[in-house]
Amino acid sequence: MTIAQHGQSVNQAFVLHPGGSFHYEERDIPTLHSERDVLVQVIATGLCGSDVHYWQHRQIGRYIVKSPIVLGHESSGVVVECGSESGFAVGDRVALEPGVACNTCSHCRAGRYNLCQAMRFAATPPYNGTLATYFCVPAECCYKLPPHISLRDGTLIEPLSVAVHSCRLAGDMQEKSVVIFGAGPVGLLCAAVSRAFGASTVIVVDVVPSRLRSAPKHGATHTYHAKSQSPEQNATDLMKIEGLKLGADIVLDATGAESCMKCGFFVLTPGGTFVQVGLGRPDPSLPVGQICDKEIVFKGSFRYGPGDFRTAIGLLQTNRIRLDGLITHEFPFSKAEEAFQNVASRAGIKSVIYGPDVDEHGAKSKLI
Amino acid sequence: MTIAQHGQSVNQAFVLHPGGSFHYEERDIPTLHSERDVLVQVIATGLCGSDVHYWQHRQIGRYIVKSPIVLGHESSGVVVECGSESGFAVGDRVALEPGVACNTCSHCRAGRYNLCQAMRFAATPPYNGTLATYFCVPAECCYKLPPHISLRDGTLIEPLSVAVHSCRLAGDMQEKSVVIFGAGPVGLLCAAVSRAFGASTVIVVDVVPSRLRSAPKHGATHTYHAKSQSPEQNATDLMKIEGLKLGADIVLDATGAESCMKCGFFVLTPGGTFVQVGLGRPDPSLPVGQICDKEIVFKGSFRYGPGDFRTAIGLLQTNRIRLDGLITHEFPFSKAEEAFQNVASRAGIKSVIYGPDVDEHGAKSKLI
Amino acid sequence: MTIAQHGQSVNQAFVLHPGGSFHYEERDIPTLHSERDVLVQVIATGLCGSDVHYWQHRQIGRYIVKSPIVLGHESSGVVVECGSESGFAVGDRVALEPGVACNTCSHCRAGRYNLCQAMRFAATPPYNGTLATYFCVPAECCYKLPPHISLRDGTLIEPLSVAVHSCRLAGDMQEKSVVIFGAGPVGLLCAAVSRAFGASTVIVVDVVPSRLRSAPKHGATHTYHAKSQSPEQNATDLMKIEGLKLGADIVLDATGAESCMKCGFFVLTPGGTFVQVGLGRPDPSLPVGQICDKEIVFKGSFRYGPGDFRTAIGLLQTNRIRLDGLITHEFPFSKAEEAFQNVASRAGIKSVIYGPDVDEHGAKSKLI
Amino acid sequence: MTIAQHGQSVNQAFVLHPGGSFHYEERDIPTLHSERDVLVQVIATGLCGSDVHYWQHRQIGRYIVKSPIVLGHESSGVVVECGSESGFAVGDRVALEPGVACNTCSHCRAGRYNLCQAMRFAATPPYNGTLATYFCVPAECCYKLPPHISLRDGTLIEPLSVAVHSCRLAGDMQEKSVVIFGAGPVGLLCAAVSRAFGASTVIVVDVVPSRLRSAPKHGATHTYHAKSQSPEQNATDLMKIEGLKLGADIVLDATGAESCMKCGFFVLTPGGTFVQVGLGRPDPSLPVGQICDKEIVFKGSFRYGPGDFRTAIGLLQTNRIRLDGLITHEFPFSKAEEAFQNVASRAGIKSVIYGPDVDEHGAKSKLI
Repeated sequence: MTIAQHGQSVNQAFVLHPGGSFHYEERDIPTLHSERDVLVQVIATGLCGSDVHYWQHRQIGRYIVKSPIVLGHESSGVVVECGSESGFAVGDRVALEPGVACNTCSHCRAGRYNLCQAMRFAATPPYNGTLATYFCVPAECCYKLPPHISLRDGTLIEPLSVAVHSCRLAGDMQEKSVVIFGAGPVGLLCAAVSRAFGASTVIVVDVVPSRLRSAPKHGATHTYHAKSQSPEQNATDLMKIEGLKLGADIVLDATGAESCMKCGFFVLTPGGTFVQVGLGRPDPSLPVGQICDKEIVFKGSFRYGPGDFRTAIGLLQTNRIRLDGLITHEFPFSKAEEAFQNVASRAGIKSVIYGPDVDEHGAKSKLI
Repeated sequence: MTIAQHGQSVNQAFVLHPGGSFHYEERDIPTLHSERDVLVQVIATGLCGSDVHYWQHRQIGRYIVKSPIVLGHESSGVVVECGSESGFAVGDRVALEPGVACNTCSHCRAGRYNLCQAMRFAATPPYNGTLATYFCVPAECCYKLPPHISLRDGTLIEPLSVAVHSCRLAGDMQEKSVVIFGAGPVGLLCAAVSRAFGASTVIVVDVVPSRLRSAPKHGATHTYHAKSQSPEQNATDLMKIEGLKLGADIVLDATGAESCMKCGFFVLTPGGTFVQVGLGRPDPSLPVGQICDKEIVFKGSFRYGPGDFRTAIGLLQTNRIRLDGLITHEFPFSKAEEAFQNVASRAGIKSVIYGPDVDEHGAKSKLI
Repeated sequence: MTIAQHGQSVNQAFVLHPGGSFHYEERDIPTLHSERDVLVQVIATGLCGSDVHYWQHRQIGRYIVKSPIVLGHESSGVVVECGSESGFAVGDRVALEPGVACNTCSHCRAGRYNLCQAMRFAATPPYNGTLATYFCVPAECCYKLPPHISLRDGTLIEPLSVAVHSCRLAGDMQEKSVVIFGAGPVGLLCAAVSRAFGASTVIVVDVVPSRLRSAPKHGATHTYHAKSQSPEQNATDLMKIEGLKLGADIVLDATGAESCMKCGFFVLTPGGTFVQVGLGRPDPSLPVGQICDKEIVFKGSFRYGPGDFRTAIGLLQTNRIRLDGLITHEFPFSKAEEAFQNVASRAGIKSVIYGPDVDEHGAKSKLI
Repeated sequence: MTIAQHGQSVNQAFVLHPGGSFHYEERDIPTLHSERDVLVQVIATGLCGSDVHYWQHRQIGRYIVKSPIVLGHESSGVVVECGSESGFAVGDRVALEPGVACNTCSHCRAGRYNLCQAMRFAATPPYNGTLATYFCVPAECCYKLPPHISLRDGTLIEPLSVAVHSCRLAGDMQEKSVVIFGAGPVGLLCAAVSRAFGASTVIVVDVVPSRLRSAPKHGATHTYHAKSQSPEQNATDLMKIEGLKLGADIVLDATGAESCMKCGFFVLTPGGTFVQVGLGRPDPSLPVGQICDKEIVFKGSFRYGPGDFRTAIGLLQTNRIRLDGLITHEFPFSKAEEAFQNVASRAGIKSVIYGPDVDEHGAKSKLI
């Protein structure tokens, strides 16, 4: 089946201009460059904090929006064209891994493609993202969805892979205690993965009590409402929770907030591991004395690497992770900007934008 | 041979009082409590920054000098009495590992005895150190010196073990580039161990040019004089050194200074490892964005663990590490306080104090 | 409470003599030698293949029954006396770790106490086992049972720890495929632990179809009846199972049979890991070509090490492992020899022998 | 500079036919297919046992010579044409990595490209090798030679990478004892790398005393002539060597002989690691009891992976490995078959064949 047969002969895109305004534009339909390429009709895209940050600030670190860019990188879709060596077939329901690595540099060859300096990552300037009718990826960035996972929920496989990557960096979790800062989508998915990975105590911490409500449904054995007090005191209070008496074996910080990070280092047990999942202000002050005395291992986590998408999908396939309740807001393509505003207002957990050619009615009955 | 036969029937100690004054006092000679215990006549003790810190500030973190304490923990000596199951003989020349772990807690059983919460560590309150005639340790804390290593140089095995531990935490060093901040005894020993462990580029960094002078003798392939400029700029300048163009694979910080730590994170290559060897001010501000984007592993290093002393001695045995030039000042027991003053003034590299019964003349000819 | 108060003033033992006969004998009640020691009244002991092997052959490898020995090492019991530093209280329901390590040799200090050459392991000559009224262990070999685990099922914590140790050696199991040879107690527990550790496909293989029946209850997603054909052919047939198409990620062999081992190496995927859990004939012929071409890691597994008992108990505490159905036969102390005969005849899965002073009636109602 | 300018307009090849005869044939000059490709004029090629085995037996395992094939895969050469993104320039002196991985399968993406099932490996049927005028590789398979390494010695970088890979699999070697079976090129290079990697005791074992002669020049601290006695007895005798009293920490077997492998398992210390470097008869009988009781890790080693060539070249660059004396025989292209006969007769250590257009006289003065 060709794209023409599929019926969408136009590639609509939702484009952020350097000035900060969004525009709907028509772009060329991507063409396959290799027999391993896959052209996907994007059905749904989840919004990430970074998408909103580019809209609001035009910059994240050294990545700057200098020319018009299509945002969005948490996407699912349907294969509409594919090369003979791709391993895919037209009609396959897929999740997209949004980073295309060079595969030949020393990082890629050594199994750390997330560190590839030639990475072309969707929605990271200057590379376009997925808020368009079509997106083309090489086969290694395309993953078949399990039959019981809707294309809507398939958008969560990208953030789930972030959580899988972080939890893997944390090492063996069997019967360990894990404290997770932040009850947003990534924090909740970290909780779910930690529990699936065998943690016996999973404590989700947030400053907003209402955000903690859904944590137990996603793997948390306990929640803790961080109070306006010193990180040490919050750590002391946390350690009153059964299962954390000797300190946490593992801390995952999905906030990047200095107070959370400090609390995390205080709450860790000697020999514990701290994984930094989210980014906050660039230069927090950290209790290095704790890190030395307790011989803590502190790891930065960056996107995802080999096997993370596959493991994420496996966790769904075997029903060890449940996604329901995470997507709280849905928007048609025509109202994409409202989705950005919704995320900016921190409403709900996760917002998704459907693809331009997704008839919301039909989509819901047939594809999503 | 009993102690009586050995001739020293008195245990003299150099004691720090909580008020800050030093006194020479006579203490009971330690007695063996088990067939695995070893009584050692202390011949020489190197002074460590922590010894001087206790003298000047009476406190390091949660450890406070509340009652009189004998300082000193970098010692060599001669076995004067030992249990039948110790594996030692009277007259053995030994280096002492100054921490006696409980050996039964979960940290000890898991091979991380440096994290033992019941550790009795010499010269860490409330436990006495080695600046005395005698010191008693269990056999696992006693190591025979290679014949060609003098008892004087044997005092360096403790800081060498600190360097070995840190370099091990850094992981495989073969043909890697290593940047070391701080050209004091530990920094220089880290350089020596890094080179012995196979690093092809070893750069020692210090703010005082004169301190860098001996670095090449101890393994440094390059030295860098850190200038009064931003950590980023120092990192940029460092990366002009051949072998560091893509950034350092490994950073070891033996200073604890915020500016060094920041520079270290900037100079690291993606996927690099940072080991914190020394302690400075407790809450430095750190570039967490770098840690995340480059997926850096940042490890606190605390003392030493299984095999570190043995490896340190092995490196000496096989002549892969040379110690000459590191001990720059020597003091008789009667002038111990001068040694503390000397270290406080940051003169030279390492100062040692000989044991109370070491006739400096005889010692030099026969024992040291 | 003293033993006298507890009421059992006699230590009865079931003793194997070098000639091969069993005798009931009265032994001295063990006395505590340290404030960390714990005296336990043995309530139940599971029989292991090695116990039966000593009875039938008087020897396993270099361990020979040269003088009378008490067998049994899979035991649970109740604390009847304990030192002030043991952390236990009289009346505590406990599982016993039967190996007492020296805790000071280089293996112990490095966290591999199962390799301790001075290990005193219950029921391994010349050390007596637990088929007696009382058994004394240091605190680190004593583990409190979760309230919902009976003393009867508590005997399974030792073989469960064997399975935990083997599965840990196999490395990360999340969403991996695992093939386990042998559907005896250890094989079934390996299946249960593999599934708890996240394996998505767990295939238990045995030559006796009836032994496979209970495998699905203990974590197996599939079973495979190994046929009288070449190991290659069995491997080929195994790989027809969904989830094993590219070969198994991990093989655990709990049989020691050459045909199973060969099949395991053939069924492994490139880069796979093979853990040898059980012992069979000493010199099987192995397909080294497969091991090299696929760069297989083949690991011997020996008993258990740091954290294995704790993890085993954690898995029970969190109900991630169920033990029901594994104990198929129970014998009073007076019929201990019948238990040995029962195991020798390969009847059922696991047989337990109750302690000498366990009133079977009372025990069942109150303790077990 | 184009090939025409370089002057060699013909691609001569030395071709093995399935019948077993060698023929000189003219082949098309390979053309670059990507801007990352590099065309290399082959200057020298070392012969490997596998080349000779294909000549003598037409088969290694599942790889069968079904059509004419060019052998040879240990080569150095000079770049004669290269794509704009290759990072190379015409005239660069290079060593070739002979396996071209797909770079996109899960093994490649996970950093284990040597397990790539789509690997095109030179001189492994059906892929041609390097015994020709030209050979074309992608940039990631091309490594610049250090200036002081001749193109002749550059052929040794491939077997050196095999040794590096095996030694890496063995894990940390600092101050460890290593026993290496086989004093051929790979065994000697394993000795050299083991010593460079920090092993304090390196014992090379062979059954032919004369082959042990050059071992001390290549890192061996001791040699052992394996006698016609049981593997256990050879192990016992080996353990009389100082530094091996408690057994070897690591064994590398470069023979594949059952007697060597058995001896290796006996000589290993508890917790030791055994790496299988070479292949012998397919199904040796192995002492699995030893593997279990000592919890040995036995690893197959297959070719080389990420970073191995780079480390090999680094070891040469820093003069930590010396290659002199390893190449004992040199043949012009016109006498290539004599080289095969020479290796078949097991004469010397390593034989090299110069490229077809290498004027032996000129080559020696200018290129080699």
